[in-house]
Amino acid sequence: MKHIKTNEFLQMERNYRANLINSIGGFKSVVLIGTKSTIGNENLAVFSSLFHLGADPALCGIVVRPCDEKQNTLGNIVQNKHYTINHILSDFFKQAHQTSAKYLEGESEFEKVGLTTQFIDDFQAPFVKESVIKFGCELVQKMDIELNGTSILIGKIVSVLVPEDVLLEDGFIDIERAGSITLSGLDTYHRTQKIARLSYAKTDRSIQEL
Amino acid sequence: MKHIKTNEFLQMERNYRANLINSIGGFKSVVLIGTKSTIGNENLAVFSSLFHLGADPALCGIVVRPCDEKQNTLGNIVQNKHYTINHILSDFFKQAHQTSAKYLEGESEFEKVGLTTQFIDDFQAPFVKESVIKFGCELVQKMDIELNGTSILIGKIVSVLVPEDVLLEDGFIDIERAGSITLSGLDTYHRTQKIARLSYAKTDRSIQEL
Repeated sequence: MKHIKTNEFLQMERNYRANLINSIGGFKSVVLIGTKSTIGNENLAVFSSLFHLGADPALCGIVVRPCDEKQNTLGNIVQNKHYTINHILSDFFKQAHQTSAKYLEGESEFEKVGLTTQFIDDFQAPFVKESVIKFGCELVQKMDIELNGTSILIGKIVSVLVPEDVLLEDGFIDIERAGSITLSGLDTYHRTQKIARLSYAKTDRSIQEL
Repeated sequence: MKHIKTNEFLQMERNYRANLINSIGGFKSVVLIGTKSTIGNENLAVFSSLFHLGADPALCGIVVRPCDEKQNTLGNIVQNKHYTINHILSDFFKQAHQTSAKYLEGESEFEKVGLTTQFIDDFQAPFVKESVIKFGCELVQKMDIELNGTSILIGKIVSVLVPEDVLLEDGFIDIERAGSITLSGLDTYHRTQKIARLSYAKTDRSIQEL
């Protein structure tokens, strides 16, 4: 067992530390975030920092860095308030990963990587047509984290698109059956294989597989 | 394709909405958080809201609800500042899930579910002995979210324990090989199967599998 302590982090080579700290937290949600600027430029970026914040109201958070390749995502969300979150399938995970390259302002990652924009009703931001589970968010709060210059964007989930055959009768979405994948570290993509769905935990009975 | 809009969320039965919104974000990190109160009570709780906040300094966030079964976790972290984050294996995922039952104040979930405390050096909070990848955090900021009464706790990662054979030479931890699992929704556990590790994305070359 290797035991790495806090003062060792400071001495690590930058990429080594990034790989280590990005993989220590476990498997992550990996999604494509679609946005549009006020002058109509479309942007698409892969994110692995999405987290659930609450179901009532329906809220989720993402972490954005101001000075990196996701600059357009942040700028567009702050301007337009609307963004889409699109699950990634193994069919197009390389295109999804390629959106993290530093394309120029005005270049659309949709076009550059070969994914298709989809506009639904009057929602301002583009969805990814190839994605089967996707949802639209509206920015409700931006929290700046002074500790490291990042921001947490809190979004209200306003529109959900999900195939009928993976939406179970109790509201659970079978994202594995829909083909959604997961990420470890910065760059390693995984399919999943269900172990079990478990009953609600109570102190006076043991857990059952549903 | 089912299209669910924002006003429909309000009319949903509570558990239906919780299942839906908890599964829409994709696969999640699922970990056990170990804490200790100032009077020595030990607490263990399963969390699925861990997110990566930055590598330099090494920071991660979790979302806690003040009025639920994780009350002790929040109280202990605020009092003691130290907590442990422990990956879950398929060997003990039912015990991990069982920690979400509402045990009484003073009852240790370690004892109740049959997992073992492990104290390492002088770190104040208990690790889970059965867990193979684990790390210790120190609370650096608590951000209250007025939108829904939750709090985001930001922790500095101060101590990492990882088996040597899953720590690659570039710092990447092969969490799949270590047996870590992932979660969808509130209650569905999954193993993973690696698709590929991908090269750093650049605009002038195509993605390679590493």
